[in-house]
Amino acid sequence: MAISVKAPHRDDTLEQQLDQLHAELEEASGRFLGYPCNLAFDYEPLYRFLRFCLNNIGDPLGGSNFQVNTRAIERKVLQFFAELLHLPWPQAWGYVTSGGTEGNTYGLFLARELHPNGILYFSQDSHYSILKTAKLLNLRNIMIRSLPNGEIDYQDLEASISVKREHPVILCANIGTTMKGAIDDLGRIQQTFERLAIHDFYIHCDAALSGMILPFVDNPPLFDFGAPINSIAISGHKMIGAPLPCGVVLARRALVKQIERSIEYVGIMDTTLSGSRSGFTPLVLWYAIRTHGRQGWRRSIQKVLQTTEAVLARLQEIGWPAWRNPHSNTIVIRRPSDELVRRWQLAVKGDIAHLIVMPHTPMERVEQFLEELRREAQTL
Amino acid sequence: MAISVKAPHRDDTLEQQLDQLHAELEEASGRFLGYPCNLAFDYEPLYRFLRFCLNNIGDPLGGSNFQVNTRAIERKVLQFFAELLHLPWPQAWGYVTSGGTEGNTYGLFLARELHPNGILYFSQDSHYSILKTAKLLNLRNIMIRSLPNGEIDYQDLEASISVKREHPVILCANIGTTMKGAIDDLGRIQQTFERLAIHDFYIHCDAALSGMILPFVDNPPLFDFGAPINSIAISGHKMIGAPLPCGVVLARRALVKQIERSIEYVGIMDTTLSGSRSGFTPLVLWYAIRTHGRQGWRRSIQKVLQTTEAVLARLQEIGWPAWRNPHSNTIVIRRPSDELVRRWQLAVKGDIAHLIVMPHTPMERVEQFLEELRREAQTL
Repeated sequence: MAISVKAPHRDDTLEQQLDQLHAELEEASGRFLGYPCNLAFDYEPLYRFLRFCLNNIGDPLGGSNFQVNTRAIERKVLQFFAELLHLPWPQAWGYVTSGGTEGNTYGLFLARELHPNGILYFSQDSHYSILKTAKLLNLRNIMIRSLPNGEIDYQDLEASISVKREHPVILCANIGTTMKGAIDDLGRIQQTFERLAIHDFYIHCDAALSGMILPFVDNPPLFDFGAPINSIAISGHKMIGAPLPCGVVLARRALVKQIERSIEYVGIMDTTLSGSRSGFTPLVLWYAIRTHGRQGWRRSIQKVLQTTEAVLARLQEIGWPAWRNPHSNTIVIRRPSDELVRRWQLAVKGDIAHLIVMPHTPMERVEQFLEELRREAQTL
Repeated sequence: MAISVKAPHRDDTLEQQLDQLHAELEEASGRFLGYPCNLAFDYEPLYRFLRFCLNNIGDPLGGSNFQVNTRAIERKVLQFFAELLHLPWPQAWGYVTSGGTEGNTYGLFLARELHPNGILYFSQDSHYSILKTAKLLNLRNIMIRSLPNGEIDYQDLEASISVKREHPVILCANIGTTMKGAIDDLGRIQQTFERLAIHDFYIHCDAALSGMILPFVDNPPLFDFGAPINSIAISGHKMIGAPLPCGVVLARRALVKQIERSIEYVGIMDTTLSGSRSGFTPLVLWYAIRTHGRQGWRRSIQKVLQTTEAVLARLQEIGWPAWRNPHSNTIVIRRPSDELVRRWQLAVKGDIAHLIVMPHTPMERVEQFLEELRREAQTL
């Protein structure tokens, strides 16, 4: 049924303001080498769905009285990721989140409910939102040193756990750190647990960016449900690309069922963290999955990693210190001048910065950046 | 700079699936009498911004290295609401959230940080997400009985607080309950605090729907920063109308500054709960505010309340038990058959259901519903 909408009165100032904002954003989107947002998308065929108030409120695997939703599509998205991450669909639970932070918060919430006496361990290279979430959840936590490449320091982890062996271990593993793209080694972490006879543990993986890279590389490290992990969060607006922040969180269904009982007891049937949830973002993710296909994603990601390698070689050519972790599209470089950082929107931390190569990354812009860097290298 | 995008290969099945989904959603959107989502919107002039990956990450009042954002617009939205709610802008802090739940979670998080030893009180007519949030935050809480009209039972509140006077009081007030549109009386609540000499308290208002109604009615009850409240959450996809869930949370800036210190100490400059935040939804809210203007909203909301009164009169005519709270567009009715509940997407709770009149509500559909109800009334 068509809803009649009164046309807003003509407002030239408003239109001018929108035009100006659009021009500014277009300009800023072209100088965009430091953030992992894939801009190679075109969701125009979905715009007509913005006439609705789509709302996927509640558990995507449950029922809903609110019919203007895309929950069937959301389940297809979840199923795609479950299969990608070696979690058989009947054993999977999850939902499309408003972004990586919500996914990590859900995973750590589930961990805390299962292990109220647990301590959270995470490396100092974790995204700052992990500490923010620990604070939100009132979760006792210990920050572990990192190795120079950004991985968790396994010795510090073992030493820290060994003096708190009476507490269950909640480990938040980085599957691609924000600054260095480092992947915590789940095999070594498991060996640590075995040496200390830790049986009560929960592993959540923050795989914001690399969760959509590793399924498409040859010989990936252990990072998904093939290992004894319990939950994982992946961003939707990063490697997939979306105009709105979104993500996917997946967990083992049996664990969610375990805490569901206590939630239902108090009359809440909703196991997601948000209430009203966007029905548009699942549509976006599904469209991206459908139009690329698994093979399309493989090609796209292989190309990204080849380009990363080529850019790294060029950096070495011009003599600017640069390196990367295996399977990562993040190139860590020595921090350039503030002017370059600002102009190219580089993320920085202390004396390092990083470039991130994405499917849309315009090579002529990279060349322009490299040229500016080359000039800066000469003046050092 | 234009980003080149490879056109996805033509996929007829995909297009057919989208067409079918669109048709289903259009049909469901027409039978939509039980949820408070204003569908009278047209944001087509904003669709072109969906080519960008807009991200308002971090505090909207702070700076950001990520330039593809609409933070300046977001501040205008916040300023509009601050003025509407009698909070001088220099004393205001807030952000555009992913929905009502995030706003309520922020408010209660702030309360818990300020009063770690506090107890949360809320009525049994509160939205289920309040209890979910209390669980998330590990916040000690006591559920208070409600009066038949949906307001908190002030006697039960006083009795409950009086036996826990050593704890600060965190009160989550309903400014329009979900099922009955009831407004907790802040004046009576304050008197309770005075009688019990409670000086350490925090009042958060869940004003999801009515927060955008009461500023536009004559002689509204006390509900905003004119009273000693500390924070308030209002939904954006409800009375304003939006294709994506969103909302606004506002708090007194001095309180946020107080907890910011402890957050900055651990190296987190981000005082919002999410990390990456949508830059599109602030644009939507700003566009709605700009095209309507305050006077436009007043007219729209006055008309909604007049229509509500007219529908209530028609219900009484056909002899179906129905009533409403003052200033509310929610009509509480005796629960009809499951068939009607499903067909008209009514929200139900026990033996009641409700209709919600919104700016878009198509009167011919309401008449159709009333006719079906009339027939049901005769068979009782």
